[in-house]
Amino acid sequence: MKYVDQLNKEQQIELQNQYEVLSYGVDTIAPEEEFKDKIAKSIKKNQPLKVKLGLDPTAPDVHIGHTVVLNKLKQFQQFGHTIQLIIGDFTGKIGDPTGKATARKALTDEEVRHNAKTYYEQFGKVIDIDAVELHYNSQWLSKVDFTEVIQLASNVTVARMLERKDFHHRYQSNKPIYLHEFFYPVMQGYDSHILESDIELGGTDQEFNVLFGRQVQEQFGQEKQVVLLLPLIEGLDGIEKMSKSKDNYIGIDESPNDIFGKTMSIPDELIIKYFELTSNLTIDEVSQIRTQLENGILHPKDAKIRLAHSFVEMLYDKEEAKRSQVNFANIFQKNKMPEEVPEVVWGKELSIGILDLVTELDLLPSKSEVRRMIKNGGIRINQEKIIDPLTTVQVIDGIIVQVGKRKFVKLKLNN
Amino acid sequence: MKYVDQLNKEQQIELQNQYEVLSYGVDTIAPEEEFKDKIAKSIKKNQPLKVKLGLDPTAPDVHIGHTVVLNKLKQFQQFGHTIQLIIGDFTGKIGDPTGKATARKALTDEEVRHNAKTYYEQFGKVIDIDAVELHYNSQWLSKVDFTEVIQLASNVTVARMLERKDFHHRYQSNKPIYLHEFFYPVMQGYDSHILESDIELGGTDQEFNVLFGRQVQEQFGQEKQVVLLLPLIEGLDGIEKMSKSKDNYIGIDESPNDIFGKTMSIPDELIIKYFELTSNLTIDEVSQIRTQLENGILHPKDAKIRLAHSFVEMLYDKEEAKRSQVNFANIFQKNKMPEEVPEVVWGKELSIGILDLVTELDLLPSKSEVRRMIKNGGIRINQEKIIDPLTTVQVIDGIIVQVGKRKFVKLKLNN
Repeated sequence: MKYVDQLNKEQQIELQNQYEVLSYGVDTIAPEEEFKDKIAKSIKKNQPLKVKLGLDPTAPDVHIGHTVVLNKLKQFQQFGHTIQLIIGDFTGKIGDPTGKATARKALTDEEVRHNAKTYYEQFGKVIDIDAVELHYNSQWLSKVDFTEVIQLASNVTVARMLERKDFHHRYQSNKPIYLHEFFYPVMQGYDSHILESDIELGGTDQEFNVLFGRQVQEQFGQEKQVVLLLPLIEGLDGIEKMSKSKDNYIGIDESPNDIFGKTMSIPDELIIKYFELTSNLTIDEVSQIRTQLENGILHPKDAKIRLAHSFVEMLYDKEEAKRSQVNFANIFQKNKMPEEVPEVVWGKELSIGILDLVTELDLLPSKSEVRRMIKNGGIRINQEKIIDPLTTVQVIDGIIVQVGKRKFVKLKLNN
Repeated sequence: MKYVDQLNKEQQIELQNQYEVLSYGVDTIAPEEEFKDKIAKSIKKNQPLKVKLGLDPTAPDVHIGHTVVLNKLKQFQQFGHTIQLIIGDFTGKIGDPTGKATARKALTDEEVRHNAKTYYEQFGKVIDIDAVELHYNSQWLSKVDFTEVIQLASNVTVARMLERKDFHHRYQSNKPIYLHEFFYPVMQGYDSHILESDIELGGTDQEFNVLFGRQVQEQFGQEKQVVLLLPLIEGLDGIEKMSKSKDNYIGIDESPNDIFGKTMSIPDELIIKYFELTSNLTIDEVSQIRTQLENGILHPKDAKIRLAHSFVEMLYDKEEAKRSQVNFANIFQKNKMPEEVPEVVWGKELSIGILDLVTELDLLPSKSEVRRMIKNGGIRINQEKIIDPLTTVQVIDGIIVQVGKRKFVKLKLNN
């Protein structure tokens, strides 16, 4: 008998409530029936669900795209469920041993801990990090021996593996798939087995690996986890998935002004999706904004201000949110300086070429980038646009160097 | 500089001699250049080559087909090289864990030792078994951990594995290949790495697995083994590869009379191939027989008598060879009893149906087989053919029961 059929009236309402919130914004729940029953079981037995999220220890840069899954974790937390964060350090410590590629260097224990800490701190801006279980999968995977590997592998067909989209594509186009890559889903599934996870979260691009955990748990005669796949959010360009490598991201660790400014630059079509998936507004609040936008009551720019405000508030606090909104208004709407300009003490030449000045200040990484920025009209000294890359600047106390729309530096002279 | 270029005159002759004998009858040497240089190195350094043969511990029935490889091992031994026999007990002890098939039971340690002993005893009929190194690969494979598995696997592409004929065929025809099966070649190669084998022998059907050892050794920065693939010999039917399951084999453990009789039944086209690959005649002797057969000087039947004689001599001794030849002549050529008929003490009913009698004596496994044999005129009592399956036999002392052409039993009464 299913747990959903064993609940009393009050419990049924609780189930309905949890199900509605937890399935909100989710791309795929597999299988939905089982998800409902897991929640029902948790309510009936008064026992939290174990909700797993696996993390790659090699890339700890967390951006607003991650809040899609972080917000979901937060909702689980709010219903009293347990979050299991797994740092996938086993493969990280092996490195990428692929023979023919430039071998990826194995991470040291220290690097793994450092990266885990980064996740920890940055995730702590969204979820209650103290209530989270943190696991390193090398703890159990390093103990698996060849016999067990063979037994794990015996439950998997090669054809099934080649169904995974990227494997299929590479096989079809004669690009190498290395045999150890087949073990990534197996290991991820093994993690679920060890932790007896009830739920695993992942992006839609993780579908194969996350579903694979069900198979491994079944092999061990265990109750299978339910999979929640969350949509991937497009980056600032509105096209590509948000990622560090595409430079179309809002970092969770960025300054309030940068978060605010970057949010203001998203395409209008993404406003609602960002609200739904990445902000901490309630279902009702988002639904209201949607209606107002559709009716023309709310201007897209004002919706974005609200969104940007909510991000800064979520990642910092109300004060910072207010301040960054004022700053933004000053720079973009009144074409003014921001309220606070960071100061840099200048101890070098007082007569210096613009290219040297901007690179010395680390405002841009190379002179050719400064040149390009000058061409685009993006470099100003005391609000005056620089046109000639050969310009020599006379540095005086309090002079302001501006790069692009959001980078300002005020130079202080030593003496 | 290659070793072949470092030999003096005498050593060059030795190289030529070894190379000629060791490559005789081999289907494929891969690569030939390296094989020559391995021998040259062994001569130059006065250091035996390590010649590996892997054995499946689940099927220890050795037949004349195995003498193809045993004779080759013997030649290596005669030149002073070292034979490494590997009992592949690691997988045998895991059993076949394939999920969907009827799981093959794992062998116990005791069964593995027993099967290894069987190989040992039967191989001892052809090669100098005391000079052989015997290894069990569970000794090292059970110690391999997941990290090492990943590293081994990272050197293999899935496409390369799917090049193996049977994998390719199964993938194409949508029959499952289980992931652990990909590890059989890897393990076999790992054995070569551990034992630092110079040469690995195998049947032509083992090409992929045996060549794979080169890749694993290379991964460990080791000198690569050379592969000698030996032809598979057809069985008595002249069509299928000799094997126990096809019942077309001559067992190494069979009685001299059976070995002799079965050898006489091979098709004429196979005579030379059997001489070349399975007998212990020299190259020159075989070449002489070939010429005589071609010129019609030697009748195929007489060639087969020589072959059968050589098998019994190889597996037993000269005496037995002579005796089985006389027996054969008596039965088949003069239609007489064999010289010696095995005696069985009969303590059961003295009046017994023919079906019961033959099955009680274990001459045939079932009554339906006795019935079929009677139909074919293959059952005789004191040389008199039985026609009716309902015949009742009156057992008297010394009565002879004959089944087929070669099975005779003389019944002795207890009192």
